Amino acid sequence: MLREAPRSESQLEHLAREAQALPTSELVYLVETRPATEAAMLFRVLGKGTALAVFETLPAPHQAELISALRTPQVAELIGDLDPDDRASLFDELPAAVAERLMHGLDADERAMTTAVLGYPRHAIGRYMSPEVLTLSPSMSVRDAREHVREHAEDAETIYLLPVVDGSRVLLGVVGLRRLLLAEEDALVGDLAHEAVRSQATDDREDAARRFFAAKLLAMPIVDGEERLVGILTVDDAIEILERENHEDSARTSGSEPLPRSYLSTPILRVVRSRIVWLLVLAISAILTVQVLEIFEDRLEQVVILALFIPLLTGTGGNTGNQAATTVTRALAVGEVRVRDLPRVVWRELRVGAVLGTVLGALGFMVSGLVYGLAIGTVMGLTLLSICTMAAIVGGLMPLVAKKVGADPAVFSNPFISTFCDATGLIIYFTIATVVLGL
Amino acid sequence: MLREAPRSESQLEHLAREAQALPTSELVYLVETRPATEAAMLFRVLGKGTALAVFETLPAPHQAELISALRTPQVAELIGDLDPDDRASLFDELPAAVAERLMHGLDADERAMTTAVLGYPRHAIGRYMSPEVLTLSPSMSVRDAREHVREHAEDAETIYLLPVVDGSRVLLGVVGLRRLLLAEEDALVGDLAHEAVRSQATDDREDAARRFFAAKLLAMPIVDGEERLVGILTVDDAIEILERENHEDSARTSGSEPLPRSYLSTPILRVVRSRIVWLLVLAISAILTVQVLEIFEDRLEQVVILALFIPLLTGTGGNTGNQAATTVTRALAVGEVRVRDLPRVVWRELRVGAVLGTVLGALGFMVSGLVYGLAIGTVMGLTLLSICTMAAIVGGLMPLVAKKVGADPAVFSNPFISTFCDATGLIIYFTIATVVLGL
Repeated sequence: MLREAPRSESQLEHLAREAQALPTSELVYLVETRPATEAAMLFRVLGKGTALAVFETLPAPHQAELISALRTPQVAELIGDLDPDDRASLFDELPAAVAERLMHGLDADERAMTTAVLGYPRHAIGRYMSPEVLTLSPSMSVRDAREHVREHAEDAETIYLLPVVDGSRVLLGVVGLRRLLLAEEDALVGDLAHEAVRSQATDDREDAARRFFAAKLLAMPIVDGEERLVGILTVDDAIEILERENHEDSARTSGSEPLPRSYLSTPILRVVRSRIVWLLVLAISAILTVQVLEIFEDRLEQVVILALFIPLLTGTGGNTGNQAATTVTRALAVGEVRVRDLPRVVWRELRVGAVLGTVLGALGFMVSGLVYGLAIGTVMGLTLLSICTMAAIVGGLMPLVAKKVGADPAVFSNPFISTFCDATGLIIYFTIATVVLGL
Repeated sequence: MLREAPRSESQLEHLAREAQALPTSELVYLVETRPATEAAMLFRVLGKGTALAVFETLPAPHQAELISALRTPQVAELIGDLDPDDRASLFDELPAAVAERLMHGLDADERAMTTAVLGYPRHAIGRYMSPEVLTLSPSMSVRDAREHVREHAEDAETIYLLPVVDGSRVLLGVVGLRRLLLAEEDALVGDLAHEAVRSQATDDREDAARRFFAAKLLAMPIVDGEERLVGILTVDDAIEILERENHEDSARTSGSEPLPRSYLSTPILRVVRSRIVWLLVLAISAILTVQVLEIFEDRLEQVVILALFIPLLTGTGGNTGNQAATTVTRALAVGEVRVRDLPRVVWRELRVGAVLGTVLGALGFMVSGLVYGLAIGTVMGLTLLSICTMAAIVGGLMPLVAKKVGADPAVFSNPFISTFCDATGLIIYFTIATVVLGL
C-alpha cells in the first residue's frame, strides 16, 4: 500500500510510473486521496485524454484545488474541454480572480454558455443543464432534419432527443432520434413531435431529476419562464444530482453535513466542521434528559436498580423511532407519501408500534421479571410497550412535519428523534415505575 | 382526502371518474395506496396505454398482487407488453401456477427471452438486462449498418449503442449511433467500433450499475463467461438498481429491512416483520448495557447523580459513532475508500474524534462543573473526550470490517454502533468516575 504521503522525488517518480499503467478509476482514486500538491504532480504525467477523463470525474471543489495547484498551460486546455455545466460548478469553487482569468481563456461561445449556466441559483436545475442543444423546426422535412443532425452532431451534448422549437425558441415538443430514423423521408418534423416532459431552469434540481427518471428519459429540455428552450439535461447530469441528494440525505440522517470532496482527502478540521455543529445541538438538547432524570432523582435513590435499564429503554425507543422515520422519509422522497397522508401515517405507526411494543414488552416482562422480580418485570413490560408505540408515532410524524414547514425531512429525522424519544421515554418509564412500585 | 377504504359502488365510481382526469403519477400513487381489490377496480377503468404506463411503474410484488386481483383478458395483454426483464421480476413474485399460465400466454420469442432472464440469480445483473439487442457485424459497411438499424429499430430495447459481434456472438466492441451517423458511408463498422465497457450476466447488480454510471453510458452490453453477448442494460434499468440499493442501505442503516412495496399499501404486519427482527437483536444486545451497569451498581448507590448523565453520554457516543459510520459507509459504496485504507481511516477518525471530544468535553466540563461542582465536571469532561474518540474510531472501523467479512456495511452500521458505544461508553464513564471521585 502507498504510504500516507510520499515526499521524496524518487517516490513521486515511482508514483508517476505506476500511474501510467493504471485504469482511470484507479487514477481518480489516487488523485482524490493524495494531498493536492502531489495529486498535481501525478496529474502532470498523465496524457491529455486521461487527464481530462480523470478531471471530469473529480468533485468540483477538488477540481478547484487541483487547478490552483497546477498553474500550467494544461489548465486552460482542461477548462476548455469541460462541458459548460461542469465548468460552472468548478468556477463556483475557484477564487474569483482565478475564475475570472480562466473565463477569459475561453472562446466567445464557451464563455457565453458558461455565464448563462452560472446565472441560475445554486440548486436550480439550470445549473446542471447543457446550453449546447441541437434543435429542429416543425417545418423541416425528416430528410432535412436527418441532414441537420448529421451536420451538427459533433458539438451537441446529445442528439438522441431533439427539441422542436419555433422562430423564437419556444419549445413545441420533442422528437426522439429513433423516431426520426424510422419516419418517412418527406414527413414533417412538426407531425412527428410529441409533447415534451420539461423543467423550468429555476426548478429545484431534485424535483427535476426525479421527473426525469420517472419519465425514463435520455434527455429533458429545460425552458425559461416564457417556455423558451434554454438548455437540455442529460442522463449523466440527472444521475449526478440523484447521487448528491442521496449523499446529502444519508449524511443528514446521521446528523452530519455531506463532505464537499472525497473522505480521505478532506482535511481533518473540515471533517470536524461537518459534524461538530450537529453534535453540539444534539448534546445540548440531550441536557433535557438530565433535567428529566433530576425530577426523578429521589425515585432513583429509592430504587437504584431502575438506573440499570435506562440505556436499554432509551436505545430501544431511539431504534423504533429511527426505523419509522427512515421509512417515512424515503416514502416522502419517492412520492409514495404526501404531507396530506399524515393521519394515515400516524394511524399506521400507532398500530405498528403497538405490535412491536407488545412483542418486546412481553419479552422484557419475562426476562427482567425472572431476574428482578414481578414488580420490575411489570414496569419493564409496560414501559417497552408504551415507548415503542410513542417512538413509532414520533418517528413517522417528524419527517412529515419537517416537510410541512419546508425543512429537509432528513435533517429533522434520526438524531433528533433519538434525543426526543430519550427524554419522553424516561418520563414514561419513571411515571410507570412510580405507579407500579408505589414510590 | 380520500377515506382509508371507500367500499360502496358509488364511491368507486366516483374514484373511477376522478381517475380518468388524473396524470399517470397521480394514478400510480392511487393504485399504490389503495387496497388491491380496489386498485384492480380503478385499474380496469383506465385506457390500455395509461394502464400499461401505470403498471410498468409499480414495484413487482405490487404488480403481482394486482394481476391476481384482476383476472381479466387485460392481464395477458399487459404481460405481453412488458419488457422481458420487468416481466421476469414480476413472475418471481407471482404464485408459480399463475406465472406458468401467463408464461404460456406469451408468444415463443417473448417466452424464450423471459426464461433466459429468469435463469440468472436474483441479484445478478442478468436479471435486469434486456435480451432484445440490435447487433452489427464488423464486416458491415456504415451504409448497410444504418439500413439494418432502421429496419430493426422497432423491436430493439435501444439503438443508441450498437454492440458489434462476430459469427458466434462474441462481443468485439460497440458503436454509438452518433458515431455511425457521422461516419463515411463506405467505412466499415469494424473500424468504427471501440472497446466496450461490459459486465458479465452473473456480476452483482450494484457493481454493474456503478460501472455503468462511472462510464457515463446510455447502455452496457452484458456477456456470458465466453464473452458472448447475451443482452444489454439500459439507463432506466441501471437507475432502478441504484434506487433499490439506496433504499436498502437507508433502511438497513436504521435497522430495518426495505419494504417490498409502497409504505401506505404494505400490510401492518408486513411492516412489523421488516422491523421486529432487528429491534429484538438490538434490544437483546442492549442487555449488555444492563450488565455493565450492574457491575457499577454500588458506585451508583454512592453517587446517584452519576445516573443523570447516562442518556446524554450514551446518546453523544452513539451520534459520534453514527456520523463516522455513515461517512465511511458511503465512501466505501462510491469507491473513495477501500478496505486496504483501514489504517488511514482509523488514524483520521482518531484525530477527528479527539477534536470533537475536546470541544464537547470542554463544554461538558464547564456546564456540569458549574452545576454539580468541579469533581463531576472533571468526570464529564474526561468522559466526553474519551467517548467521542472511541465512538469515532468504532464508527469508522465497523463498515470496513463488515465489508472485509463480506457483509453489507450498512447492516453492521448505525444501530449496532449505538449499542456497542453505549456499553463501552458506560464502562469508560464509571471507570473515570471511580478514579476521579475516588469511589
